[in-house]
Amino acid sequence: MPGVTIGIDVGGTNIKAGVVDAGGAAVVRREIETEAARGFEHVFQRLTSLANELRGAAGQPVSAIGIGVPGPLSHARGVIHRAPNLPGWVNVPMRDRFSAATGLPVCLENDANAAAFGEFVAGAGRALRDLVMLTLGTGIGGGVILDGRLWRGSFDNAGEIGHMIVLPGGRECPCGQRGCLERYASANAVAERAAEALRAGERSALSDPFLQGQRAGAGGGGLTAADVEGAATEGDALASRVWEEMCRCLAIACVNIQHLYNPQAVILAGGLINAGGRLLEPVRRCFDALTWTIAPDRPRIELAELGGNAGLIGAAALARIEFG
Amino acid sequence: MPGVTIGIDVGGTNIKAGVVDAGGAAVVRREIETEAARGFEHVFQRLTSLANELRGAAGQPVSAIGIGVPGPLSHARGVIHRAPNLPGWVNVPMRDRFSAATGLPVCLENDANAAAFGEFVAGAGRALRDLVMLTLGTGIGGGVILDGRLWRGSFDNAGEIGHMIVLPGGRECPCGQRGCLERYASANAVAERAAEALRAGERSALSDPFLQGQRAGAGGGGLTAADVEGAATEGDALASRVWEEMCRCLAIACVNIQHLYNPQAVILAGGLINAGGRLLEPVRRCFDALTWTIAPDRPRIELAELGGNAGLIGAAALARIEFG
Repeated sequence: MPGVTIGIDVGGTNIKAGVVDAGGAAVVRREIETEAARGFEHVFQRLTSLANELRGAAGQPVSAIGIGVPGPLSHARGVIHRAPNLPGWVNVPMRDRFSAATGLPVCLENDANAAAFGEFVAGAGRALRDLVMLTLGTGIGGGVILDGRLWRGSFDNAGEIGHMIVLPGGRECPCGQRGCLERYASANAVAERAAEALRAGERSALSDPFLQGQRAGAGGGGLTAADVEGAATEGDALASRVWEEMCRCLAIACVNIQHLYNPQAVILAGGLINAGGRLLEPVRRCFDALTWTIAPDRPRIELAELGGNAGLIGAAALARIEFG
Repeated sequence: MPGVTIGIDVGGTNIKAGVVDAGGAAVVRREIETEAARGFEHVFQRLTSLANELRGAAGQPVSAIGIGVPGPLSHARGVIHRAPNLPGWVNVPMRDRFSAATGLPVCLENDANAAAFGEFVAGAGRALRDLVMLTLGTGIGGGVILDGRLWRGSFDNAGEIGHMIVLPGGRECPCGQRGCLERYASANAVAERAAEALRAGERSALSDPFLQGQRAGAGGGGLTAADVEGAATEGDALASRVWEEMCRCLAIACVNIQHLYNPQAVILAGGLINAGGRLLEPVRRCFDALTWTIAPDRPRIELAELGGNAGLIGAAALARIEFG
């Protein structure tokens, strides 16, 4: 199929969108605020205007739109069950409504799946047939590409790797489980665990900024995963422990991904990968120490390459496949 | 493709084989001893004779042979890397040798994959599109069917679910890892863990038979998983604890399978399922207690139906698909 498709990545803060060609390049690119607090209908109007603007800017016919949204959702039925961080997005028949509003066929996809497919077609996975991607952000999203196809699962929930149990009986997760990967290895979890230790009185290079943040009324003392990483790099014991445990939990997840999916690669994405080698090297080191020694079937562990563009590129590519 | 294929399931003790029709029914069935101790060439001759005998008994043209062998092996190259319990089976180009010896195309498959495919075509999964099967025996084998196809993985090692880490830092596994599912939930692990507790002096209804077994020189006091299950059913505390922990570890594996593959069903197979509801009910109960509550995407957990015939039926069906 020649021509272009539109890809849209809806986040709680920003909407990223673009016109994407057959090679996975975003030839036109826009980013606007989501204004999620104003509710679904308001955001829907913004999405419709954005799609029309991109269609005008494309300079050639647009054949379809792919839209990535935080799940859970049903790709098959085109319905968003509930989107965390998007108040009022409950049981929304997004595909059909957006298709009616724009006059184009629409492919609705989980945002982590779309981002994984973006890296597969145009990023860290462009030379691969199989990959599993972990997006390390507020939570942990996952996307699974097997033999060139996005694996969605029987219930459209495949690749919810953030909810793999890595420590039975461990930390409570809002999902209702205990010991989920997300409670140890998301950006939020790293900041939370450091804040907990500081609150319990442990001394650290993070103590002063934490107390200042608390006085200023910041949640969790205003600590971020980047603060923890910075302190760990300086040799702070608390920060190093939290960071190392995060890397170890990611490595356990990689071992389980290796044995279950047996993919060519595990791609790490999301805000935490700003740490670069300070994330990748300890994850690889822990993985090598934890995985089996009886078969040479280790996946490569790599960082994503497309940053914030992966979701829109993947959504556009999925729309091209579905309607091409 | 009309006609029939031959399926062969090579185990350390017995070889099960049959002529299988397009519906997955074994219309002719044979079982012989493996005589594995006499080495590869001896077993290979037995396999060749068996295939020729079945071909004669088929009463119609046989189009291909599928053969399931304990891995690790390469389906793509038709080579067995190393077969535990089959002395001397190292780097054997089984597919090409067996094809030359029989004059038929041969499909070489991991035995757990073949058994999973057998249940998929003719057993507990015959109405499904996706399933993950766990074969609970000496170790734990796994097989993964996604969208009607066996998923083998990039390195032919997908579905090695026995080596999912369910307890980080836990029991050592001969594979080089710690905390593998197989160390808690295989038939061997159940017997071993009970024997360890008895050896450490814990009292139990199993103490007397264990001590008698030890005196008679039996490894592990001659205990079996069935002994543990029997004592657990009678309310013995030690046996109940070991059995419950096995069920809980299986349930953790089911939760992780749910979130990673998101299949319609998890099928339990192998010797341990002789316990029937005394296995299935606690696994389901633990699963319900452990899994998330935010999406209605729970796989059914069911017992396999084909018993010892699953492997040969699956191997025959895979040969039919590959050469049909």
